[in-house]
This record gives sequence, C-alpha cells and structure tokens, in this order.
Amino acid sequence: MGDTLRIAIAGLGTVGGGLLKLLDGATPVGGGRLKAVAVSARDRHRRREADISQLQWFDDAVAMAREAEIDVFVELIGGSDGPAKAAVEAALKRGVHVVTANKALLAEHGLALATLAETTGAHILYEAAVAGGIPVIKALRDGLAGGNRVNAVSGILNGTCNYLLTEMESSGRPFADVLADAQRLGYAEADPTTDVGGFDAGHKIALLAAIAFGAPPDFAAVDIEGVDNVTLMDIRLAGKLGYRIKLIAKAERVDESVRVGVHPALVAFDHPLASVGSSLNAVVIDADPVGRLSFVGRGAGAGPTASAVAADLLDLLAGAARPPFGRPVADLVRQPPAARAEEGRFFLRILVHDKPGVIAAIAEQLAKAGVSIESFLQDPAEAGADVPIVLTTQRCPRGALDAAVRHIAALDVVAAPPRLMPIEDTRSGLRAWS
Amino acid sequence: MGDTLRIAIAGLGTVGGGLLKLLDGATPVGGGRLKAVAVSARDRHRRREADISQLQWFDDAVAMAREAEIDVFVELIGGSDGPAKAAVEAALKRGVHVVTANKALLAEHGLALATLAETTGAHILYEAAVAGGIPVIKALRDGLAGGNRVNAVSGILNGTCNYLLTEMESSGRPFADVLADAQRLGYAEADPTTDVGGFDAGHKIALLAAIAFGAPPDFAAVDIEGVDNVTLMDIRLAGKLGYRIKLIAKAERVDESVRVGVHPALVAFDHPLASVGSSLNAVVIDADPVGRLSFVGRGAGAGPTASAVAADLLDLLAGAARPPFGRPVADLVRQPPAARAEEGRFFLRILVHDKPGVIAAIAEQLAKAGVSIESFLQDPAEAGADVPIVLTTQRCPRGALDAAVRHIAALDVVAAPPRLMPIEDTRSGLRAWS
Repeated sequence: MGDTLRIAIAGLGTVGGGLLKLLDGATPVGGGRLKAVAVSARDRHRRREADISQLQWFDDAVAMAREAEIDVFVELIGGSDGPAKAAVEAALKRGVHVVTANKALLAEHGLALATLAETTGAHILYEAAVAGGIPVIKALRDGLAGGNRVNAVSGILNGTCNYLLTEMESSGRPFADVLADAQRLGYAEADPTTDVGGFDAGHKIALLAAIAFGAPPDFAAVDIEGVDNVTLMDIRLAGKLGYRIKLIAKAERVDESVRVGVHPALVAFDHPLASVGSSLNAVVIDADPVGRLSFVGRGAGAGPTASAVAADLLDLLAGAARPPFGRPVADLVRQPPAARAEEGRFFLRILVHDKPGVIAAIAEQLAKAGVSIESFLQDPAEAGADVPIVLTTQRCPRGALDAAVRHIAALDVVAAPPRLMPIEDTRSGLRAWS
Repeated sequence: MGDTLRIAIAGLGTVGGGLLKLLDGATPVGGGRLKAVAVSARDRHRRREADISQLQWFDDAVAMAREAEIDVFVELIGGSDGPAKAAVEAALKRGVHVVTANKALLAEHGLALATLAETTGAHILYEAAVAGGIPVIKALRDGLAGGNRVNAVSGILNGTCNYLLTEMESSGRPFADVLADAQRLGYAEADPTTDVGGFDAGHKIALLAAIAFGAPPDFAAVDIEGVDNVTLMDIRLAGKLGYRIKLIAKAERVDESVRVGVHPALVAFDHPLASVGSSLNAVVIDADPVGRLSFVGRGAGAGPTASAVAADLLDLLAGAARPPFGRPVADLVRQPPAARAEEGRFFLRILVHDKPGVIAAIAEQLAKAGVSIESFLQDPAEAGADVPIVLTTQRCPRGALDAAVRHIAALDVVAAPPRLMPIEDTRSGLRAWS
C-alpha cells in the first residue's frame, strides 16, 4: 500500500472531527504517513472545527467506499445495518481495510464481514468499538488470547448506564428524572433504548467474548437486561448492605461452554468496579497463566475514540494488523451456550404487606429450595406503604432460587414481583485487587 | 523466517520453565508455530518440570546466541551486564530477534542495543520486563504513543516493595522483620538491594518514560529512593491522616522537559493505587486525547512473565514487532531533565523533644518559606520517647519546603532528621477514578 495510508472517513460527528484534528495535528500521527483524503457526512455545509476543503467530498458513504482512492475506510456512521454495513462491505470487497467504532455492526455481522475481508486480504480493526480509549481489543487479541486460556472477561462497558446509576445514587433521584437530565445534557440519546436497555453493552461483550474464546461473535446468544428497571429503592437497600448496583457485562467459561450476559448486579463497596464512576469504563480479564488484569479509562467521547482509531491506523501502517477475532475465520470455534445453571450469591428484594408471619413464609420457601440466607434486612415501613424486605443469599444455584422466588411471588402477603440481582463476589471474575 | 519461529531460551528458572510449559501445552501457542529448539542454563542436570531432552543444550548462553539455528533468542538470565548483555549482543549481531524480561539491561544499554538491532534488522521485545503480565509496553508503544501526547506515566512497579509495605502496615512489624520473612518465603532476594533500593522500579520507569516520550532510555537520570527507610511510625502516622505509603514510580512532562523518579509517597485511602496490594503492579497513563488509563495485574511470577514473553513471540510470528522504543533510533529525542523544582503537597514528620514552643518554632520556619500547613497531628509521647509531629502541606514548591526543613532540622528541639515524602493527589497523574 506504499508509504502513506490514504484514509476516507465516513461520519464527521465529534469522533470524526476529533480524528481529523489528530491526523492534522502539530506532530502528525505516524510521521504524517496517515493522510485523510476523503470524507462523507450527512451535511456538507455544516460548520466544523476541522477544515475539510482540501478533502474529496462524498454525499454517499457507500459511493466513497466504492470509488475513493484509499487504503483505509474509517466507518463512524453507526448502526448494525443500513449505510454503515453497505459501506463496510463495499470497502472490504475492494480489499480496502476498515477501521470502525461500530460494535453493533461487528457483533451482529462480524463473522460474515471477517469472511469477506479474508477473501480480499483486507483487515477489520475496531479498537474504538469497545471501552473507548482503553486498548482492550489489542490487549486481548494481540497480547493475551494467544498465550493464555481466558476464563472470563467482564466489566462496565456502557458509560451512559454507569452515569445514570452513579447519578441516581448520589442525587437520590429516580431513573426517569436522571435520564431526562442526561438527555438534555447530551449524555444520553433521544432514543436511549440501545444504551439503557443494555444492548450496547451486549454488543461489546459479544465482541470481547469472540476474541477471548476464539469464537465468531454471537450477539443473539447474549442474555441482556438493562438498567431501566433499577429502582432508587434497590440502590438504597443495596447500599445499606454494603453494595453498589452496576451494569455488569460478563463472558465466562462454564465447563466446555460459555455464558455471556449483561445484567445489573451488586458489587461490594471495596470491589474495584464499585469506584468506577460516571462515564468511565472498566474491563477485567481473568486468564491462565497471566492471572487477573484490570483496565480502566474513559469509555466514550471524541478524544478516547479518536485515539483508538489512530492506534488501529498505526497498526495498519506498521503491517501489524491481526484477524478481527484473533485467528483466521476457519479456526474460529462456535462455543455452545452454558447448559449448567448459573451459581452464585444473589440479592433478593420483596415488597410485602406488613403482617405477622411474612418473614417466616419467605424463609420457609428459601429453606425448601435449599437456599441459605447470608444477610437479611427489613426496612422500616413508610407511612401506609408496603415494606421492603431484602436479603442476600449464600452461594446457590440460580435455578433453585428462581423456583423459590416463584413460590414467594405467589404468597398473599407479597405486594409486587420480587427483584432478584446477582452479586459479583470474590469467586467471580471480579475479585478485589488486594 | 519461514512459518515456524525457532526459539532458544537462556535461563530455565521459574519463568523459563513456565515458558517451556506454555509452548508445549495442549493448545500450542501460535498454532504450534512457536518452537523451542535450544536451551541453556546453569545446571544441565537439575530436576525440571519441563522435558528438555529433545532440545539442543548449551552450557554457555553466548555460544547459544552465536551458534544455535534460531530465529529468536529469549533472554531470561538477568543483570545489566555480563552474560545477558553478551548473549543479547551476539544474537542481535546475527539478526536474531531478542525477547527479554531484562529491565536492567535495556534501561542501561537500550539505545546501543536498539541501534545494533536496527543495523541487522532484528527486533527487541520486552513486554515481560515491566509490570509482569500487564501488556503495558504494547499499550503504550503500539496503542497510545503514536496518536497521543503522553503527559505522565506512573505506578507501582515493584512487587517486592509493595509486598513489604503492605505487610508492614497489616502486621505492624518493622521493615527488617518483614524483609527477613519475605526472604525466607522467597518473595525477596538474598541480596534485596535491587528491589528495596528502588532500582528495579527505576529501570522499569526509565523504559516506560522512553516509550512515552519517544526518547532513549536514561536510567542515570532517574531520581531513586527505595523503601528501606520507610518506618512503621511513618506508615502509622500517614494512616492517621488518611493515607497509605506506596513506592511510586513516575515519569512526567514538566514544560518541555521530563522528570522521572521513584519515591515512597502517600496516597489517600480512596486513591486507586491505595488498594493495589501485595504483589500486584499498577500503571496509570495520562495522555491527550485519550485521558487517563489505569492497568492493574500481577507484576511477577512464572505465569504472568511467560504470558508476556509469549505475546512478544506472537508479535514476531505475526510480523507485528515495532521498534523497541516506539520509533526508529534516529527519531528518538533525548529529553532534558526538568529544571523547574517539583511542586505538590508533602508529608513531613519531625521527631522532637517534648518542650514548650516546639510547634511554634516549626510553624515559623514553614511560614517564612511561604509553605501553608493543611493538616497537623501531634502524636502522644510514648514513655520517655521523643514525640513525632506530622503535618501535610498545601501545594508548594519543593525547593521552598526543602529550605524550611533544613532550618527545622537545625533546631535544638528536633531529635532526628525530619522525614519528607510527596503526597500523590488529584492534581498529579494519579487522580481517583470517579
């Protein structure tokens, strides 16, 4: 590809603008051998910080991918389908490398795109798609997966959810209020479903799981629950028991299968993930023989994302790009989803009518299921309201607990469906650091 | 170099043994295309877990580097000079790549070795030399340095020192006792100078500084203080003020120069480095535009180190190796050491004879130097003993404080040389995560 990488950038939002600034900076990235030559965006005439007058303009990203004289197509459009997918396919078909921040596209079509790239000798790089500026794709794909057996990858992968949970806890305001503010401030999208529903974190953990386990990405197999049902009451009660609620994405080996999911979960206050606040992301990798590695950094924004895209471009310049999921497509092995039920400690919150015998009735159902209680808290009733009872269990099979919870939900004294959340503890992939 | 990398391993201690095991494992690293073919060690007939009977044996590492039919020479001998240096030079002269865990060698002779490697087209890779299994060399060299301006790199880089400080605090036993135990348990060397004197951390931060700032490594310019003078009294008093003492290695830009040092320093209990206990390492990188990134993992041991060596070997296999300090030797720019005095907050402990007017005399000297006191603690005297007075300063120039401390040391009432340590705070490269 010669000495200079000719780059097209599709999408000139904050990240695309940040990238142009970086490539155009006082100390040119890659000694000036990374050169933006073409751009496309929705509106040619919008005011921009970066000067794009010297670059070839395309109204249509797909046309740019198909026609521009380029070595690399940087896709910053977003979305799992539509123009992003069409443009990436057009670039790969020509043997043009793709650098993208698009987790949805790769999580849902990663195998097909990797296969296409292999046939033309193009590379797909996507450091910016997961955990912003944290070089976790590189660490996992180039640094660890080859010489290690990865047992678990987990973390806090969605800054919006982490911001919302952090704000709810610190301000004591309910989810809807905090979300409305975040939307006004630009921290959350007008349609927040992708973030707050856990789907964005799901895309990201599907990609990390693929690299960690040498498998094709399998977004459909990710078990996803968002933060939209996390209540102030649960945040407050978890706090009384010494825990904070975080949205945890996790991919782990279970015997010869894998479990990949996104769930609100409790972490103890002294747990390393408990102090990962606001818009930060964190990734924890457990592997043999390296042990546990933790990474923390800003998960989104123009700077971190542009930094990650630049790192990928420098990999291409150095001829150092690897296959997108760490090994050739033919060597990827689909991992069966875990059949064995999850096992762990859990937080259970039950709203009850304050009557004698309530606790006995609940405790009896748990005892019948063989679930031992670790801690128990009955919060004083507010005037006229139902009373929340919370408990944490000792380590138990999720299946047994689910059965007990179904019986508890059916009790006359129970006022609302009980709330069950896992507790990330020292036996999981997220032990404390000391 | 063909499809298979032929590897010689010099040094078969725990790391060399761990590497042989890894290369020989059930799932061969790199699809079996990494192949150990020759080994050397001090004693051929020592009992080893790994079977070396199929490998070519050399009594002399230098002879192996010179004669074995290999593509890569893995140097696990250690030491900045002697056979390690001779063997590495012999390998590089032939164009044989070197993978090493030897921070002393590279910190002290890195520029000469990089120059030699460039002339023959050999690569030098040393992920295992810094922070064990944490892929921080790769993150900094391949992921960040190109597209970012690194402002500071800091961390906890010596597991032995971190273990000793952690043990002193938790057990309340003095340095010498804890060190003797650590030596008995194999956590510290018989001659512990390299570790406890801060030199090992100094070697490591010299290498991180070189990559971060695009400079040749300059170990001689590293300002080094070890943990051997950290007393139980200071650990206890720092704790009363809300701080923990850690050995912090730090490289930072100061205007157009750099400051690189290793010092015992105070970190607040809620500081992310405060909870990095025992044998863990941590690295914090502050850079534009990526922001702050933190990495935590095991800093030593067979597993983490073998994992790091394997990652380097896989880089060679993928043709993905970069210049050892991130850019060609001709592009490395020596950074002038910072002329401007350090500025920050400090911890000052003074042992005094318990007489009226002591506090006034000390406060007067600080006031004269323009140093403001932030917190102040006089500990009750133990029977007949001198009394420790501790204080933390507000942000001030180190030079002014040093002058005041000289005057304080000369006061009649002062019983021993005062102890001064920097406080890592939110304005340094090590702010809390939230």
